[in-house]
Amino acid sequence: MDTLSILRDLAIIIICAKFFGLVARKLKAPQVAGEIVAGLLIGPSVFNIVQSNDFLTGMAEIGVILLMFNAGLETDIQQLKKSGLKATLIACSGVAVPMVLGTLLFMCFYGFSGPGTENFTHGLFIGTILAATSVSITVQALRELGKLSTEVGTTIMSAAIIDDVIGILVLTAVISLKNPDANLGVVAIKTFLFFVLAAGVGYIIYLVMKKIDKRYPHTRRIPIIGLALAFALSYIADKYFGVADITGAYCAGVILCSLDDAEYIGRKMDINSYMIFGPIFFASIGLQTNLRKLDTTILLFSLAFVVVGLVGKIIGCGAMAKICGYSGSDSLKIGVGMMTRGEVALIVAQRGLKAGMLDSRYFTSVILLIIISSIITPIALKALYARTDKTKPAKAAEKAAG
Amino acid sequence: MDTLSILRDLAIIIICAKFFGLVARKLKAPQVAGEIVAGLLIGPSVFNIVQSNDFLTGMAEIGVILLMFNAGLETDIQQLKKSGLKATLIACSGVAVPMVLGTLLFMCFYGFSGPGTENFTHGLFIGTILAATSVSITVQALRELGKLSTEVGTTIMSAAIIDDVIGILVLTAVISLKNPDANLGVVAIKTFLFFVLAAGVGYIIYLVMKKIDKRYPHTRRIPIIGLALAFALSYIADKYFGVADITGAYCAGVILCSLDDAEYIGRKMDINSYMIFGPIFFASIGLQTNLRKLDTTILLFSLAFVVVGLVGKIIGCGAMAKICGYSGSDSLKIGVGMMTRGEVALIVAQRGLKAGMLDSRYFTSVILLIIISSIITPIALKALYARTDKTKPAKAAEKAAG
Repeated sequence: MDTLSILRDLAIIIICAKFFGLVARKLKAPQVAGEIVAGLLIGPSVFNIVQSNDFLTGMAEIGVILLMFNAGLETDIQQLKKSGLKATLIACSGVAVPMVLGTLLFMCFYGFSGPGTENFTHGLFIGTILAATSVSITVQALRELGKLSTEVGTTIMSAAIIDDVIGILVLTAVISLKNPDANLGVVAIKTFLFFVLAAGVGYIIYLVMKKIDKRYPHTRRIPIIGLALAFALSYIADKYFGVADITGAYCAGVILCSLDDAEYIGRKMDINSYMIFGPIFFASIGLQTNLRKLDTTILLFSLAFVVVGLVGKIIGCGAMAKICGYSGSDSLKIGVGMMTRGEVALIVAQRGLKAGMLDSRYFTSVILLIIISSIITPIALKALYARTDKTKPAKAAEKAAG
Repeated sequence: MDTLSILRDLAIIIICAKFFGLVARKLKAPQVAGEIVAGLLIGPSVFNIVQSNDFLTGMAEIGVILLMFNAGLETDIQQLKKSGLKATLIACSGVAVPMVLGTLLFMCFYGFSGPGTENFTHGLFIGTILAATSVSITVQALRELGKLSTEVGTTIMSAAIIDDVIGILVLTAVISLKNPDANLGVVAIKTFLFFVLAAGVGYIIYLVMKKIDKRYPHTRRIPIIGLALAFALSYIADKYFGVADITGAYCAGVILCSLDDAEYIGRKMDINSYMIFGPIFFASIGLQTNLRKLDTTILLFSLAFVVVGLVGKIIGCGAMAKICGYSGSDSLKIGVGMMTRGEVALIVAQRGLKAGMLDSRYFTSVILLIIISSIITPIALKALYARTDKTKPAKAAEKAAG
């Protein structure tokens, strides 16, 4: 790789992402959406002046790790405990509904057939891609709106973390339909062990960090150790336990979120994030897409796939949220907030390709879903919050009266 | 490249660099030296748990760009104007002396022969490697000591920038001895044009940025645009004008150093730098070395090469500084500050390898020079400043009395 071309790519990405981020804000849309559009414009879909490469992929990976670590740092543990059971139910329903709809969609296009047939397995795999929410964009949108630490925000965060885990379990189950080597029981045990380890070792780390923090408050070593912990836990989660690395980063944040200096760490991370890694992460979603390669059949399928993906989460998560006792407006926000798909959907698709369960042309559909959900979700969330924030004073008055 | 192993490498590098940086500080040595030692320890020389790779090289490149951009931001233009002529003279002498000594050293080992022979050209090339100071480590050491914006600091900075340019001209001249395609006149003109462009376009950018800064002071867009400028100018310098990219980054800093928000930009860059990119840059110097591969002949040559490299700069720059009217103690500081070699020496060596003028085994010598000069220079500078800072009150009293 040419180190010189890295500098050129970074200059273009940073300046374009910032510019379109500001344009998005002027249009009352979240900056993230602008950054993704910037990636689309400079990428192979339009001007083709920057191409995705290994280095940018690595930088984007660091970007999403920082984002999730930061989200973990902002977690309100009390809130998490309160929303834990509800979040699990919402996550389960949010996995099941899109999976069923996705399988049905595939069969509508390619013929119906019963369980056990190859066609059915392939359909099930299309459904599996739709299972996991990728919360990073929702996190950024909620943060821009100042709603990340609210009950709805925490519920979305926890449900998305849980549905990553469920998504990976489902992936393993579906792949094991074709490959007897993958053992679902082992995966479940490893995942469970990871969370036990994260809780146990995490508590010890928390106590040590609390001591260091007391002795050297507001020194550079605090965020640096935190950052190293985020990278280490991400690596360990993925490498040794088969849990998504971003889940590891989130756990690292949760481990440190009760430190006195949690906010200080978060501020330092945020600067790293918004200056370099964040714009690269969001722009690279656009960069990885080539809209020019679409043909009519796959375009039609892709559009249906996107609609099913979005509606599936709104119904699956929104309905369960309503059953769990959230208000109609909050349930809708939860459903909408869970719509985003990202790198996890891509990873699932890649594993399916490797296992011979997915054709490579469906990658366009997956990327289209990622882009559209990433652009629509923040805009929709902003609109939903604008509506409730307007009516809130009235509601608060009602409540007081009631 | 495996994105997962990146996370592992980063976790190890960041935690080890920080740890040994703190150990170095406890031992009254600068943190940079500790970070390089950390790289040596985790690299192939000792424990071999992290290997240098394309991704880390790219990150290290960003690290050195940020470092030089920051150094440019901290430039005092008045000081630079004052020290410009002297710095040029010091740079010239600091290139000439090590070149002559390096050529002589090679001949001591491999036999004397006159100009025009292959042996002479190879010897001259060994001298050329010694020409360019790599100022990044000195910058960091001077910054840790709080001496970057002093007259001596500015002189070292300017001389190092100028000797990069001279070093590249000399490299082209020496290579053109074997390859008639490289035209020295063209290189000189391109270098001149770059500085004209940097000054002209730079002034326009400065005026635009000043307006933006006035309208949106202390907003995120200011450092982001600055960062993009640093990357862009680094790329343009190297790609279109054959000037080292780090020189471009330094110029970007100088362009913005008179903004009201220059310090604000610097602070944001500094956080990016010390959290991730800086430790990676310094540790990767150690990572690129394998001390186990040394045999006796090359070890002997390497040791002599290192001594000649260090002494050559002290004599070349120090003596000229004294001639230019600096005090004995300041001249020594300038000579010592110019001792560091870094990526430019490696780049020169790589180009020599490509042109068939250097054997690959001399790479160990170059890397050894980089490591030893990078460790010794900051320690020596700190000691020199400690001595003068102690005697300063006395001197100030003398001056007042005089």
